[in-house]
Amino acid sequence: MNKYFPGISKIEFEGPNSKNPLSFKQYDENEVVLGKTMKEHLKFASSYWHTFCGTGADPFGPGTQPLPWLKESDPIKRADDTMEVAFEFFHKIGTPYYCSHDRDMAPAGRSIEESEDILWSFAEKAKKYQSQTGIKMLFGSANLFSNPAYMCGAATNPDFSVLCNAATQVKTMMDVVKFLDADNYVFWGGREGYDTLLNTDMKRELSHLGMFLKQAVAYAKKIGFEGNILIEPKPMEPTKHQYDFDSATVIGFLKEHGLEKDIKLNIEANHATLAGHTFAHELQVCTDAGMLGSIDINRGDAQNGWDTDQFPTNLYDTVEAMMVVLQNGGLGKGGLNFDSKTRRTSTDLSDIFYGYIGGMDAFARGLKIAAKILNNSPLPAMKEARYSSYDSGKGKEFEEGLLDLEALYKIGKDNGQPNAVSGRQELYENIINECIF
Amino acid sequence: MNKYFPGISKIEFEGPNSKNPLSFKQYDENEVVLGKTMKEHLKFASSYWHTFCGTGADPFGPGTQPLPWLKESDPIKRADDTMEVAFEFFHKIGTPYYCSHDRDMAPAGRSIEESEDILWSFAEKAKKYQSQTGIKMLFGSANLFSNPAYMCGAATNPDFSVLCNAATQVKTMMDVVKFLDADNYVFWGGREGYDTLLNTDMKRELSHLGMFLKQAVAYAKKIGFEGNILIEPKPMEPTKHQYDFDSATVIGFLKEHGLEKDIKLNIEANHATLAGHTFAHELQVCTDAGMLGSIDINRGDAQNGWDTDQFPTNLYDTVEAMMVVLQNGGLGKGGLNFDSKTRRTSTDLSDIFYGYIGGMDAFARGLKIAAKILNNSPLPAMKEARYSSYDSGKGKEFEEGLLDLEALYKIGKDNGQPNAVSGRQELYENIINECIF
Amino acid sequence: MNKYFPGISKIEFEGPNSKNPLSFKQYDENEVVLGKTMKEHLKFASSYWHTFCGTGADPFGPGTQPLPWLKESDPIKRADDTMEVAFEFFHKIGTPYYCSHDRDMAPAGRSIEESEDILWSFAEKAKKYQSQTGIKMLFGSANLFSNPAYMCGAATNPDFSVLCNAATQVKTMMDVVKFLDADNYVFWGGREGYDTLLNTDMKRELSHLGMFLKQAVAYAKKIGFEGNILIEPKPMEPTKHQYDFDSATVIGFLKEHGLEKDIKLNIEANHATLAGHTFAHELQVCTDAGMLGSIDINRGDAQNGWDTDQFPTNLYDTVEAMMVVLQNGGLGKGGLNFDSKTRRTSTDLSDIFYGYIGGMDAFARGLKIAAKILNNSPLPAMKEARYSSYDSGKGKEFEEGLLDLEALYKIGKDNGQPNAVSGRQELYENIINECIF
Amino acid sequence: MNKYFPGISKIEFEGPNSKNPLSFKQYDENEVVLGKTMKEHLKFASSYWHTFCGTGADPFGPGTQPLPWLKESDPIKRADDTMEVAFEFFHKIGTPYYCSHDRDMAPAGRSIEESEDILWSFAEKAKKYQSQTGIKMLFGSANLFSNPAYMCGAATNPDFSVLCNAATQVKTMMDVVKFLDADNYVFWGGREGYDTLLNTDMKRELSHLGMFLKQAVAYAKKIGFEGNILIEPKPMEPTKHQYDFDSATVIGFLKEHGLEKDIKLNIEANHATLAGHTFAHELQVCTDAGMLGSIDINRGDAQNGWDTDQFPTNLYDTVEAMMVVLQNGGLGKGGLNFDSKTRRTSTDLSDIFYGYIGGMDAFARGLKIAAKILNNSPLPAMKEARYSSYDSGKGKEFEEGLLDLEALYKIGKDNGQPNAVSGRQELYENIINECIF
Repeated sequence: MNKYFPGISKIEFEGPNSKNPLSFKQYDENEVVLGKTMKEHLKFASSYWHTFCGTGADPFGPGTQPLPWLKESDPIKRADDTMEVAFEFFHKIGTPYYCSHDRDMAPAGRSIEESEDILWSFAEKAKKYQSQTGIKMLFGSANLFSNPAYMCGAATNPDFSVLCNAATQVKTMMDVVKFLDADNYVFWGGREGYDTLLNTDMKRELSHLGMFLKQAVAYAKKIGFEGNILIEPKPMEPTKHQYDFDSATVIGFLKEHGLEKDIKLNIEANHATLAGHTFAHELQVCTDAGMLGSIDINRGDAQNGWDTDQFPTNLYDTVEAMMVVLQNGGLGKGGLNFDSKTRRTSTDLSDIFYGYIGGMDAFARGLKIAAKILNNSPLPAMKEARYSSYDSGKGKEFEEGLLDLEALYKIGKDNGQPNAVSGRQELYENIINECIF
Repeated sequence: MNKYFPGISKIEFEGPNSKNPLSFKQYDENEVVLGKTMKEHLKFASSYWHTFCGTGADPFGPGTQPLPWLKESDPIKRADDTMEVAFEFFHKIGTPYYCSHDRDMAPAGRSIEESEDILWSFAEKAKKYQSQTGIKMLFGSANLFSNPAYMCGAATNPDFSVLCNAATQVKTMMDVVKFLDADNYVFWGGREGYDTLLNTDMKRELSHLGMFLKQAVAYAKKIGFEGNILIEPKPMEPTKHQYDFDSATVIGFLKEHGLEKDIKLNIEANHATLAGHTFAHELQVCTDAGMLGSIDINRGDAQNGWDTDQFPTNLYDTVEAMMVVLQNGGLGKGGLNFDSKTRRTSTDLSDIFYGYIGGMDAFARGLKIAAKILNNSPLPAMKEARYSSYDSGKGKEFEEGLLDLEALYKIGKDNGQPNAVSGRQELYENIINECIF
Repeated sequence: MNKYFPGISKIEFEGPNSKNPLSFKQYDENEVVLGKTMKEHLKFASSYWHTFCGTGADPFGPGTQPLPWLKESDPIKRADDTMEVAFEFFHKIGTPYYCSHDRDMAPAGRSIEESEDILWSFAEKAKKYQSQTGIKMLFGSANLFSNPAYMCGAATNPDFSVLCNAATQVKTMMDVVKFLDADNYVFWGGREGYDTLLNTDMKRELSHLGMFLKQAVAYAKKIGFEGNILIEPKPMEPTKHQYDFDSATVIGFLKEHGLEKDIKLNIEANHATLAGHTFAHELQVCTDAGMLGSIDINRGDAQNGWDTDQFPTNLYDTVEAMMVVLQNGGLGKGGLNFDSKTRRTSTDLSDIFYGYIGGMDAFARGLKIAAKILNNSPLPAMKEARYSSYDSGKGKEFEEGLLDLEALYKIGKDNGQPNAVSGRQELYENIINECIF
Repeated sequence: MNKYFPGISKIEFEGPNSKNPLSFKQYDENEVVLGKTMKEHLKFASSYWHTFCGTGADPFGPGTQPLPWLKESDPIKRADDTMEVAFEFFHKIGTPYYCSHDRDMAPAGRSIEESEDILWSFAEKAKKYQSQTGIKMLFGSANLFSNPAYMCGAATNPDFSVLCNAATQVKTMMDVVKFLDADNYVFWGGREGYDTLLNTDMKRELSHLGMFLKQAVAYAKKIGFEGNILIEPKPMEPTKHQYDFDSATVIGFLKEHGLEKDIKLNIEANHATLAGHTFAHELQVCTDAGMLGSIDINRGDAQNGWDTDQFPTNLYDTVEAMMVVLQNGGLGKGGLNFDSKTRRTSTDLSDIFYGYIGGMDAFARGLKIAAKILNNSPLPAMKEARYSSYDSGKGKEFEEGLLDLEALYKIGKDNGQPNAVSGRQELYENIINECIF
């Protein structure tokens, strides 16, 4: 467990005054906040794909990062080395969970059979690593977007044979996810959408997606998978328009197909922004529906219109996210997954550690501040008081459906022109900053 | 009927070679396309508010347009003059419908009672004008956004007394809409949303909105209103985040509250763009759900992030919209409403006519081209053929729910790696252009 | 000095543990940071217009804020009351400067002569208030955007008579600004631009703007005005495209017209964002050109595409801005002007104080953190070391222009393929956060 | 010349009624418009890289297009085949020009020397093909963005040795461009910019860029290259912020470094949009400065914030672009380069032809309509008349610098409050549509 980062030992909490860039300043996994340890609150996960499988390629150039575990020409050996470095890293960075697609840990073979065999052999290796280290899988997923066959969609492909190909991956990966005792299975539909409406029967494609998910859910139940099944919304990229546009769209779709009890959402910060929402908004929409499953904690760049998948460093984002999570009573089976990658220009191996350390510290700090806001600031009471006219009397009767439009009309007419009450946004914002400063 | 625009007579169709800027070059209301006249296909409506009630104010300066019907200092006289010019204009421009809020045609009084009396007196005047001219109301709406009391929402206001105030307007305007025999009643929730999540209980506000709409629908049924009730999505502006974000969000919300049989959608082109969609996308989402009610046909500016409400002139937009409308079997009780206004710098009275003429010609041309694409081009057959693998055999069985994941898995495995079939976007786009050029 | 906010006394620094929302938690005007007091570093200014002249109107509704100093129906009395409240506020909030347009402090009259007389009478009142309170004018400006005559531009209007009208305001306001001993005169060209290129001769309009500014600069010199003359870039709104798009555009324009020694820039945070830049970027562009004049410190909303003019509360923005300011050696004659307004829904008079307190605390905290980053963190040295290959040897010769392409070619060929050195963005970001947390 | 597209013969003009998708409906290269053939007006160029070197990879998946000329495993053979297909395609599609980077036509070798040898061998082959076919090079460029060494910039790299490496490519490619008798040499600085300001000395980087360009210009003069040298602006992607942000920024930068006589601009439609401008705006800025060099004619997607490089099909864009070009007196040494690629999902070889045909037809149609607008519509005279107050009298004196601010003030005061004259945007837009319909 010290082969790929020999110069870097397990990252320890050294407190805010440490000058060591390879230490945590805020994240002390054993520190108790509101009755739980930080480790339990935050449930951090490393992402297998961004951390070990990419080397910084972008549409204008190939990879820049000479990762030593990708040196072998044989894909199986490469995958072996990658799994070795992965668990070394999980151990050293201290994330108790990891996430992976089928194709991240196991390369495709020349046939479906061979691909399955390879995947199972790596699943067994992963299981051993898991039991040796105590590190668990937060979620697994089938990669239904890289294979060129999926270029026009997987479950929404106009060609039925492509949908069946997707079924082979989904069934197998569900089996693997159960085998690895993962807490969640995730669908990210990066190619489920369209590039032009001119060639697209959106209604038919969406009905195929609903049917496919129904069959997948039925299969998961059949095999006794007890984790969450999750959909991860994203509005666009790679596809011009993606069907899982945002939380509201996905929740509506799930209800349309009777799947709202069986599927929750995996919210990614950056996908929220691309859809024209804040991260906190998307989390709130899910918690209000009782459908928050798990969270991908990368960030975008407010000036760039694509998915930059940067490590989370903005304290406002982490505070607001943790406020929603704490009010939701925690993450349940979900966790905080670093679907983040170092910049293409961050070519040192230590840069990966800097990325994770920065993100973990930012969320640890965000957790503490969120706890303070919710428990030691006037904000929650101020917010509750805004709605007090619905807590009793006629307002309550309205909420209970006891007042029809004519009854409301009569109250309104008796009241005359109502006053406008200040929303006091500036004061609310100041309270947040007082807790942050 | 010739008081306010004495130099401008009824706008006539003069054909594409006319040099008269005050004539239609494309819109011949009697021309038959696919078995219906253009007038029946397009069902144009003039918007009362933008056309007669605004004078070009923007956040950085007051109105610039010296509209003669707004000269009187007494608001009742001003409203009288405004209704007079409105019907002169409707007649001259030749839109068979118009749309109005309560506050557009009738100013507020000093009390709710007085406001209602004023509104009813103008409703009676409007009814006379309607019967004299044959012009009908496409939709009416209660303005639940201008009154400062609504600054934090109407049906979603934290203060129950504001919600009741909204009820007075909605009930009365529903009565008026029925009295005026309008085809639709529209809800636009410009203030239903939030400026900051910090002070907002989104879940409670949305439950209030759902309850309010339920009571409004019940009332409409009680009074025997037989038109459509519509919600008009918009993602933001004036509010930072509006609950009626886009079609998918609204449809999901309506289903959540059991209102999907009672409420349809009024789609505005510019609101689509602000939500990160195309106009055609939003229309398609609604038609796929069987919930397209009516259409507001302004456009935005792709470089500006606010609602510019420009007259529609882009032929691609009108073609794509009319393709959806024709495939939907027409607009039903809905129509094409010009929720558009002349630029602040367009200060001549004739500019209003140029705006409408341009928009009506653009949609007339779009209708003809859409008909050609759907009936005399290879596009529809190409699109249908893309999905033919689901028309029979195993694909059809999948659509019918007869194949579980294991069955799909087996087909996929038997097939082996599928081929990728070209989506041919460039060819589809060329066909559109061939019909446009 | 206690008429309009009788319940609010002078805002005092009470430190981070104070529970009093009407106190500073961070801004202690006498605290010394890097050898200067916070008051000297930050040079805060209140904006006359947003703070006292607007009541929350937006494109969808009138004002909501019942400001007591705007109650009088006579505009002169209203302006008197407004100036009275203004200096009460400046005193209580503790901003040592204020900013105003001609039309904010003095209403227009029925003729140009009368407008000038009114303006001068208020200038004399302001001078008295200034001498009584010690509060100074940071900048004055002529409002060349509200008057409908400016709807198609002021100095760029196609009509020469409008340009001459603008000249009357600019000359008079320059005289007033000198009389009031202001440190800066600002041009904001909100209407200098176009709504459509179809009707616009951009080249001719820009040459008019250059000529107009030349004549204005000459006049300022003639009257002995010794402050800065500033242009404030903004890319759009109210105009579709504004000529003063961003810093780079304005600097290029000034050089084109030989004005780069005479005019500097006034950077507004929110205008930076609307132009697709960060606030820090725009500040850096100006300081690199030696042309940073002054700063407007509001913020926008990353999800909304218009100018929301919110109070600055984001610590990252204030830290990054103050890093540029400190490296620039301070603000010179410029200052930090709150071109910010309370939300339309913030209708209590105390909300104005909350807005300013939040902004001043956010910049005070940002100043302290920026000082720490620049003086007690490894960041500056890391950044300097990145460029060390240009500090001596061939790199230095290149900078000095001593190496032609063939010489560079030869070095490159001798070197062979160069290595890529990590940019270490994650580490840089962590250092910022360590100083913030 | 019939090896790779055996089923497709030279694309011919067949007119608008042809049902053959592999024919031109609008582009008749010999048709004379305003005294020149379409071929002379439009000067179409094929882009070597998008058309032959990419296979549809995107950040979420590898290439999808099985291009037969990329089958060989030996890179030299692959490049041979690619050049063969390129000239077959140029001939069949009928673009009289092509564009290429060094690395498109010739793969890199193991050393700089070898890379140069390979490039020269392909330059000689290209020269033969050029002389056999009559097809010319519109522009050549050194690829200074794909090599990982350039990840932090080429001429703006913090490491001097990377800058020298860039010099080897630029010098050699300039020699090749002269050898191939190309009309233009283009710099696209995709990596010249920054990902974070925290680690960037923008001022120093920009001074390096200026110096590098000066040395490159001097070298071009020394070797007697008589074509244009061009910079292609782009605001972002791959880099977060690119220094060549937009036309105004680049023009300002060139003037700062005294390069405005030596370097012109290559405008790309999609880059304009990403910078918040219209295509026509960027073209107009360049022509007003006398610095329009050449044009890349792809388009973006208004809903997606990255560079989609789609084929141009929007008639409004082509009309507006050709209006600027015609008013500029044509393209000079420049041309219209298809920096466009088929969609990832367009996997048939014929899709490449559909893309080019669609784009060439759209520009041919745009040329004809633009000619009509400029020569047979009231628009040009309307626009000129707007500015007539500057054509004589005091307005003219102002333009000539004869009126100081006090003189303008006096005229303004004598005039009194000016009238506002309608800008008539709707009428201008209708005229465009009348010529399009």
